[in-house]
Amino acid sequence: MMQTPLLLSSFIKRAEQFFPNKLVISRTSADTIHRIPYREWAKRTRKLSNALTKLGMKHGTKVGTFGWNHHRHLEAYFGVPSTGAILHMVNIRLSPEHLAYVINHAEDEIMLVDDNLFPHFEKLAPLLKTVKHIVIMGDSMDVPETSLKNVYSYEALLAEASDEYDYPEDLDENTPAGMCYTSATTGYPKGVVYSHRGLVLHSYALGLADAMGMREGDVILPVVPMFHVNAWGMPFAAVFFGTTQVLPGPGFTPQLLLDLIEREKVTLTAGVPTIWLAMLKEQEQNPRDLSSLRGIVSGGSASPKGLIRAFEEKLGVPFYVGYGMTETSPLVSLSVYTSGMEELSMDERIDIRALQGLIMPGLEVKVVNEDGEVPWDGKTMGELAVRGPWIASEYYKDDRTDEAFRDGWLYTGDIAVMTDIGYLKLMDRTKDLIKSGGEWISSVDLENALMTHPDVFEAAVIAIPHEKWQERPLACVVLKDGKAADDAKKAELLAYLDGQFAKWWVPDDVVFLDEIPKTSVGKFLKATLREQLKGHEMGV
Amino acid sequence: MMQTPLLLSSFIKRAEQFFPNKLVISRTSADTIHRIPYREWAKRTRKLSNALTKLGMKHGTKVGTFGWNHHRHLEAYFGVPSTGAILHMVNIRLSPEHLAYVINHAEDEIMLVDDNLFPHFEKLAPLLKTVKHIVIMGDSMDVPETSLKNVYSYEALLAEASDEYDYPEDLDENTPAGMCYTSATTGYPKGVVYSHRGLVLHSYALGLADAMGMREGDVILPVVPMFHVNAWGMPFAAVFFGTTQVLPGPGFTPQLLLDLIEREKVTLTAGVPTIWLAMLKEQEQNPRDLSSLRGIVSGGSASPKGLIRAFEEKLGVPFYVGYGMTETSPLVSLSVYTSGMEELSMDERIDIRALQGLIMPGLEVKVVNEDGEVPWDGKTMGELAVRGPWIASEYYKDDRTDEAFRDGWLYTGDIAVMTDIGYLKLMDRTKDLIKSGGEWISSVDLENALMTHPDVFEAAVIAIPHEKWQERPLACVVLKDGKAADDAKKAELLAYLDGQFAKWWVPDDVVFLDEIPKTSVGKFLKATLREQLKGHEMGV
Repeated sequence: MMQTPLLLSSFIKRAEQFFPNKLVISRTSADTIHRIPYREWAKRTRKLSNALTKLGMKHGTKVGTFGWNHHRHLEAYFGVPSTGAILHMVNIRLSPEHLAYVINHAEDEIMLVDDNLFPHFEKLAPLLKTVKHIVIMGDSMDVPETSLKNVYSYEALLAEASDEYDYPEDLDENTPAGMCYTSATTGYPKGVVYSHRGLVLHSYALGLADAMGMREGDVILPVVPMFHVNAWGMPFAAVFFGTTQVLPGPGFTPQLLLDLIEREKVTLTAGVPTIWLAMLKEQEQNPRDLSSLRGIVSGGSASPKGLIRAFEEKLGVPFYVGYGMTETSPLVSLSVYTSGMEELSMDERIDIRALQGLIMPGLEVKVVNEDGEVPWDGKTMGELAVRGPWIASEYYKDDRTDEAFRDGWLYTGDIAVMTDIGYLKLMDRTKDLIKSGGEWISSVDLENALMTHPDVFEAAVIAIPHEKWQERPLACVVLKDGKAADDAKKAELLAYLDGQFAKWWVPDDVVFLDEIPKTSVGKFLKATLREQLKGHEMGV
Repeated sequence: MMQTPLLLSSFIKRAEQFFPNKLVISRTSADTIHRIPYREWAKRTRKLSNALTKLGMKHGTKVGTFGWNHHRHLEAYFGVPSTGAILHMVNIRLSPEHLAYVINHAEDEIMLVDDNLFPHFEKLAPLLKTVKHIVIMGDSMDVPETSLKNVYSYEALLAEASDEYDYPEDLDENTPAGMCYTSATTGYPKGVVYSHRGLVLHSYALGLADAMGMREGDVILPVVPMFHVNAWGMPFAAVFFGTTQVLPGPGFTPQLLLDLIEREKVTLTAGVPTIWLAMLKEQEQNPRDLSSLRGIVSGGSASPKGLIRAFEEKLGVPFYVGYGMTETSPLVSLSVYTSGMEELSMDERIDIRALQGLIMPGLEVKVVNEDGEVPWDGKTMGELAVRGPWIASEYYKDDRTDEAFRDGWLYTGDIAVMTDIGYLKLMDRTKDLIKSGGEWISSVDLENALMTHPDVFEAAVIAIPHEKWQERPLACVVLKDGKAADDAKKAELLAYLDGQFAKWWVPDDVVFLDEIPKTSVGKFLKATLREQLKGHEMGV
């Protein structure tokens, strides 16, 4: 067989040759939407490659992005790695200290920064050690006033650049293409490097009929930020398949997302559960025509069953729960249906949708506890390990690599069971698991159950140290507006759980909070909760 | 990223772990159908690996198969290459001379032979130089009476073998996995070697929503033989996705195929147009319930529009025309719909279905004539060239390699145009093209048009040498039963073409034949026709 390497540059060529008139629909501000055909986008992408090469970008140069989801970011997604350079998608929501760390640690030499994020970025500049050039991604040909040097307008650079660039066709497919950093429980974020090969294979996976089934006829709306694990790989796959993509830009709201879905006839969208909760609320108050939607992909944290039910039952939109992490490109699994599931009752189907689902073809998983691999029985918990060609093999220049990467597997730090039909079910993070009397209690299972109670808005369950049992669960609950946070409610919630779990799983107490502390990507910060509630005395 | 190689052995593990109860439905004789769950099939496959290892199979050993489509052949598809050995799928329809050539040329050491084909194979045996062991694939534990030595029963070997085998996980993904020989216009067949990497990537392509979209919920029926270009890759992909496969065994008829589709609720089937023509006739006389069918894939030779229309319009079954060849694993393109095509009129949609369609993601094509690459305008003809990771890079130990493989591309020998929407349209084989007055006439276009005439059963158009014009087209027509082959019919057919093509494309004459000579896989043997009609005097 031909030794044709798997390279992202081939996607540009494909989109341009086969789908020249398909659109990248890009919102760059509250009142600006660009509609750019792939023919034009491909030219702009090559112009960007030329412009950055002129600024000194070479094979292996790290180019950072600091921006929202829009066409320029998509141009960088391809225009940087296709040359052999490496795209570092910086998570704009990190703390200034962590931002400086990741940019310095990656040794980014060029930064592409959104105009509306430049004031924020400007403050970081004194901390940055390797950045030589700053390119402002915006609609203006001018640069904002600044004391920083070597600041350019993206559009001005493109205006001067040639739209021809011969991307190397003999690049090794294992060449690094992209980087993202993932936040760690303690210490600085950890870097993950994506190769061309990994991203190409991941794109194939997104197109499989048994996965997202992304295709030319789709109109995708990645709500998940492009600085967050490659926007789950959707922008790459969309260029590969000639799919229309709607990039929602900065400051989007549930209203805006619903408007975009209705107007652009979006078929597939992806993001974290908090987005869907907010969108659902808005849709109930002010309904739009969502009939074009054939699927929502939800991941990043647990999707409450009530949310899944609302989309599936009320709105008739299939709601897929996915699982993945920065280290996995990210798609590991998706709660698609296999044979016969379509015929199940709505309740049974929602139970399946709430699982993390079927493992992608090409990946392998195992679940291990101290005795080795556990059986796929839907109840024996262990840590999930993954391997495959789009799974990272290390953290970039980081001695925390050995904690997670062992014997050729990535140990995810997630506690899971595999059901008897081979579907993944996440039970907890290793560090959030509650160890009571030598047994394991899944905080996530309890939270999910609590969040099906009609009065509960959000719930987190954490471990509280216990003299006799080692640890015991404590439920932290945010009630819906207007619900009384009293002892009667406590008793009601615990009784509600009592019917669903073994006695010893039921929390010893409930505390009512105004909100659950969350990370920048909307995940519960249980470490913070544990810290806040350290001395909590149990007792209902 | 992890350096996990793309290996066929991972498919076995996936089917066994995730789809243990899904079935391989295998017909081995007129009255025997086996229903083997993947759990059991995987064990049998490992038993086969052990049994063949015991017979001397090592890394790189060539193991030939000489058999129809059934579960044992599928076991060989995986049980041989997963160990690092190479599966040679011998085309049982070759002449004895060519059969001996391919087996000797590949240096097959072990042959797996169907019980019902053994009498045929036995006659070849004296010509074979490298074969040391013969394993009879059949339901019996005994071997037929024979003077040959080292003949074993497949089932007897499996009965003694362990069902555990640790397939090497560190095999280079470029290791040869399989071989097929393709017949040449002149001389012996040419060998093509498939790698694990190529077959795995090809399997991903079959699963893409924009291609066949093969998925777990499908029930596939590969009518195309397993000795013919990997049965178009479907058996590999089916194991990968956990798809039910129905393997129709020896001596199948249109009746049998329709019965299988109805009874097993087949969703997707693939084969050459002659099969579908015959099936259509049977279905018209004796209708079955074909409502489970979501697609027919037709390839190997041109599909008449009347055939496509009958399936699409009368039976409501999407009819996909595919393009590929032994050298391309084979899938290069498929006549799927892209945006907006679903809304076209039936006539327009059938025009699209009759094209060779959209090029698979991961492959590149170009169409070249003496002036270089031709524009994608739907009319400029040239030779189609293809490249990509599942395209062969050479003929196995064959100095005809340089004719077809040049500058990193496979030159297919097919004359094609690319339409303005980037769909492939085959016009002719290089050698069948008619060169008239310095211009090219596509024999295939004329044939397809003739075959839409209600009185025409089959038609082939060939070049006849011409003093003035160099070559002129001659139509060779087989009429439907009971239609008069007279001068009036000649005139009628030529007038029929006159309305559809430029004057100078219309053939100078029509000859009526009882049948068109065909190759073993049902393709028109135009070289034979040209020979038969060499001295033909044109004149209507």
